[in-house]
Amino acid sequence: MQIGMIGLGRMGGNMAERLRRGGHEVVGYDANPEVSDVASLKALVEALAAPRVVWVMVPAGEPTRLTLEELGQLMSAGDIVIDGGNSHYVDDRVHAEQLGGKGVGFVDVGVSGGVWGLQNGYALMAGGETEHIQRLMPIFETLKPEGPDGFVHAGDVGAGHFAKMVHNGIEYGMMQAFAEGYELLRASDAVKDVPGIFSSWRTGTVIRSWLLDLMVNALNEDNDLSGIRGVAQDSGEGRWTVQAAVDHAVPLPVITAALFARFASRQDDSPAMKVVAALRNQFGGHAITSAAGEVGKGADSPGADVAPPPEAR
Amino acid sequence: MQIGMIGLGRMGGNMAERLRRGGHEVVGYDANPEVSDVASLKALVEALAAPRVVWVMVPAGEPTRLTLEELGQLMSAGDIVIDGGNSHYVDDRVHAEQLGGKGVGFVDVGVSGGVWGLQNGYALMAGGETEHIQRLMPIFETLKPEGPDGFVHAGDVGAGHFAKMVHNGIEYGMMQAFAEGYELLRASDAVKDVPGIFSSWRTGTVIRSWLLDLMVNALNEDNDLSGIRGVAQDSGEGRWTVQAAVDHAVPLPVITAALFARFASRQDDSPAMKVVAALRNQFGGHAITSAAGEVGKGADSPGADVAPPPEAR
Amino acid sequence: MQIGMIGLGRMGGNMAERLRRGGHEVVGYDANPEVSDVASLKALVEALAAPRVVWVMVPAGEPTRLTLEELGQLMSAGDIVIDGGNSHYVDDRVHAEQLGGKGVGFVDVGVSGGVWGLQNGYALMAGGETEHIQRLMPIFETLKPEGPDGFVHAGDVGAGHFAKMVHNGIEYGMMQAFAEGYELLRASDAVKDVPGIFSSWRTGTVIRSWLLDLMVNALNEDNDLSGIRGVAQDSGEGRWTVQAAVDHAVPLPVITAALFARFASRQDDSPAMKVVAALRNQFGGHAITSAAGEVGKGADSPGADVAPPPEAR
Amino acid sequence: MQIGMIGLGRMGGNMAERLRRGGHEVVGYDANPEVSDVASLKALVEALAAPRVVWVMVPAGEPTRLTLEELGQLMSAGDIVIDGGNSHYVDDRVHAEQLGGKGVGFVDVGVSGGVWGLQNGYALMAGGETEHIQRLMPIFETLKPEGPDGFVHAGDVGAGHFAKMVHNGIEYGMMQAFAEGYELLRASDAVKDVPGIFSSWRTGTVIRSWLLDLMVNALNEDNDLSGIRGVAQDSGEGRWTVQAAVDHAVPLPVITAALFARFASRQDDSPAMKVVAALRNQFGGHAITSAAGEVGKGADSPGADVAPPPEAR
Repeated sequence: MQIGMIGLGRMGGNMAERLRRGGHEVVGYDANPEVSDVASLKALVEALAAPRVVWVMVPAGEPTRLTLEELGQLMSAGDIVIDGGNSHYVDDRVHAEQLGGKGVGFVDVGVSGGVWGLQNGYALMAGGETEHIQRLMPIFETLKPEGPDGFVHAGDVGAGHFAKMVHNGIEYGMMQAFAEGYELLRASDAVKDVPGIFSSWRTGTVIRSWLLDLMVNALNEDNDLSGIRGVAQDSGEGRWTVQAAVDHAVPLPVITAALFARFASRQDDSPAMKVVAALRNQFGGHAITSAAGEVGKGADSPGADVAPPPEAR
Repeated sequence: MQIGMIGLGRMGGNMAERLRRGGHEVVGYDANPEVSDVASLKALVEALAAPRVVWVMVPAGEPTRLTLEELGQLMSAGDIVIDGGNSHYVDDRVHAEQLGGKGVGFVDVGVSGGVWGLQNGYALMAGGETEHIQRLMPIFETLKPEGPDGFVHAGDVGAGHFAKMVHNGIEYGMMQAFAEGYELLRASDAVKDVPGIFSSWRTGTVIRSWLLDLMVNALNEDNDLSGIRGVAQDSGEGRWTVQAAVDHAVPLPVITAALFARFASRQDDSPAMKVVAALRNQFGGHAITSAAGEVGKGADSPGADVAPPPEAR
Repeated sequence: MQIGMIGLGRMGGNMAERLRRGGHEVVGYDANPEVSDVASLKALVEALAAPRVVWVMVPAGEPTRLTLEELGQLMSAGDIVIDGGNSHYVDDRVHAEQLGGKGVGFVDVGVSGGVWGLQNGYALMAGGETEHIQRLMPIFETLKPEGPDGFVHAGDVGAGHFAKMVHNGIEYGMMQAFAEGYELLRASDAVKDVPGIFSSWRTGTVIRSWLLDLMVNALNEDNDLSGIRGVAQDSGEGRWTVQAAVDHAVPLPVITAALFARFASRQDDSPAMKVVAALRNQFGGHAITSAAGEVGKGADSPGADVAPPPEAR
Repeated sequence: MQIGMIGLGRMGGNMAERLRRGGHEVVGYDANPEVSDVASLKALVEALAAPRVVWVMVPAGEPTRLTLEELGQLMSAGDIVIDGGNSHYVDDRVHAEQLGGKGVGFVDVGVSGGVWGLQNGYALMAGGETEHIQRLMPIFETLKPEGPDGFVHAGDVGAGHFAKMVHNGIEYGMMQAFAEGYELLRASDAVKDVPGIFSSWRTGTVIRSWLLDLMVNALNEDNDLSGIRGVAQDSGEGRWTVQAAVDHAVPLPVITAALFARFASRQDDSPAMKVVAALRNQFGGHAITSAAGEVGKGADSPGADVAPPPEAR
């Protein structure tokens, strides 16, 4: 079928290509004219026959919002807009209402697959009305991996991005679990072959997984990860997962701990731990480390001039 | 080669069978005479030609300790004892020292594979001296899965069980990550097909894994897990992982949270949360739930007879 | 000075009374005509001489929003509105902008003190412009406790409620710390006098505090808290604290754990722990507890018909 | 009454002095002859009239163990030994058994009070047999603070140190709660006076406490704690608390999070977060920070040569 694809970066470009390979007619638009089939969103909409289907694959937040607003003015009743970016599920409801006011359908799709998606297909989680989803099934069938899995009509508008968000939250927890295991292995004097241990787990164990495979790749490239700083960014979805948990009163200790570990990894010094050090100094003359890196007693702390048994307070 | 196998339950029995299929000569002993080749540990040792190899596959703790003690009296210099059970790595060092005093070698092996091991092989993590490991390689080669992975000489005595312990710790974290994701999906009004979402993740996503496959199986059998109570046991290894982390000063927030979630799952009522409820009642006349399940104001709490704006204190 | 007080419940009523005792002229309005000095918000505003000062002390959220909207239409340039309820700091900025468009000043005040406030004074954390704060100092001086502490100009609009929110977040963490200590003491066979232990800590220890005093009160009333269920509500501020932490990329493990413990305390059964139990059953025939409370092997799980050594998988 | 005091450092010396001021006869022994009344443990025991009472106040672990062993050889049936150091409660049972074999009583006492104890008294938590505790009451009465609180017979042998350990665990959680609140306040653009906010909480709030007072002191000395690094040591008791929780299957999320935050504060780089960064790089060409501090794409990671929308994977 015919589809407009907005945003032809790594994700959108490959998806357009996979759709073409699958026999669909794709009209692509991108801010970069070198990869764009048309000169503007307006031209894109005009190039499509009604009822139109347009897939938006641009960065979440402002870019997606502006694109959807403009599409709302260009498209007509009976058309469908798909947001396949990493939008916040809360925004989906707003966008669906705005477009719905003009009779334009809205479907949100969480997309997973990254650089392997072109060849292997993309996992797709869709949210929206059943009627809309059914019209789009030929597209989903082409984009998804072969086999029985890889696509779900997750629920109403927002459910697709919600599912993708939860996927990423689970991913945070799993990555941190591997990370903690690695650190504990490194701390043991008896353990001599950490990369070998991870490799040994690839077959026959409960934790075999694609992340474990990546872990083995990473350790093969750099045995002790000495070339990498322990600094990890986080994407919006990790934060949204925790905020959704708070909104829904769902305890999420593991995923939240994983998110907080990333926050902490980016700090040069921890304001919180300054407080703990300062309090320890206040109540017992415990040694503190000055900002200059020297260890010493606080000069004016009680007991600073005596040598306490370290635990006795 | 020739090997004695002590403990012929689900694990030891299948391992003995896989070894036999691989061409090894196995003499098996079990407390259950119906499955045992010999009548006693003494008979087992006498049935083997020196230098002997004996694999102990009995429950961790007391049973393993007693078995190793008895073997220490029966075996001779040059023999090797393998502890393939789920022993605490701390005990391995004690056992190695005891047996080493008589010239008997000790190797600890963490074994993963469960009921699929007989057919697919067992992941093996071994700790001990290189000379001992090399003598045992024909056995390990037969037990492990085909392919490059599935066996590691993890390090010195104790490293095998340490690695298996960490594997299980990682497993705790990964399981809890899936569990939290499930709960958050269930909490969303928009999400309609939770089992379908998990299925959709099996291909093309970052979190594809054997645990995800099991999760899909479980949801296929019982869509909303209504037949299962949210009560989870923990094995020794989860606890040892956290205690090893504390001993080594390694922060392990995710794995520990997963362990604590299991502890909490087994409580009918939480003593800690009684305190939180009691304190809230003390400082503001907040409603408490009586043990009989009624919600009410504590009769003698300050302000109990007025209706406070819920947040104002 | 003259002030209008809107909301004469436990908090607002007592604050109006403390202001009157301090020599201020208070015109009070409440939806309940029995305690109200005037019949409407309009009548309240008309009863005050310009430039007016009105303190809003109604429940956070919708009631506060509606009250501020109505006041925005009634009041005039040069007037000041104070929101002393437990509003979300994010809302303060919106309200300040709306009122500011008409030249009406806005100050947010976090208030602590509860039922003891009338007699002992209220801790006040104010956010807003210095000029507005200075005009209101006579009121703050009367409301706050005697002595050097108890009032702070915390910062710009929103900073007062932000500070109060953080106060409550800290409170969550402290309460949970006591709660966990209690539970651990209860778990020890050697410990015989838990209430006595808490009492012993009231003097000479690092953790002496008002919460400890309340804890001792609670244990004196009910030695083992057997009359209370371990079920704890949470207020908006605990949730906002965690969400603010996520927004600001600040790791908050303790406060978040305290919030999640409250969420969990309100669950009859944990969907997450159903998953953990189901997965354990999937991979090793571990016993599960059915919803009916029976412990058994899943009939169709692998290995369900054999008796595994509990840890060996 | 007459008592021997072993260990005359900051704690033991001050306790000896408080006992003397209270009318007791104290014979003190210390490795430092300048502060010692007698030349050896033997001389100390000989200087006391039977039945003797000896208070051991030396660092926990090896020094305490050796002292108790030597005392076991010197003392006689009917004597009582008190361990007032910060010993692990697990050791108490061993020591009680060893001394009990000779008819020597053993009492463990957790002591809190630090440098203020000489003047204000020490909070005392005692474990042991009622008969022993009663004989020692004159000593406890003198050491404890005035008033009804400050002493508890917590339970059997070990209960005193267990209670002190839990006290310190609670302390960890409370300190971390304040620390997290501080960090969140610092992260807000609207908040301008963080020290003032802490001061404002000293009266009329739920979190007023000695730790809050110390916090205010610390901020008065160094407004933004710029002179302190965020590095915090931990004492044995924090670790024992978590290990006791694991042993007793008690969930302790807050206290454990506080301990882990201290562990993390002492790391220059986090091995765990290296893994997270490496995994992110593996699956999507996310930027990593090299050990040299440069941010860049991993040269050989998939997709490293394209500019991905940051969240789209």
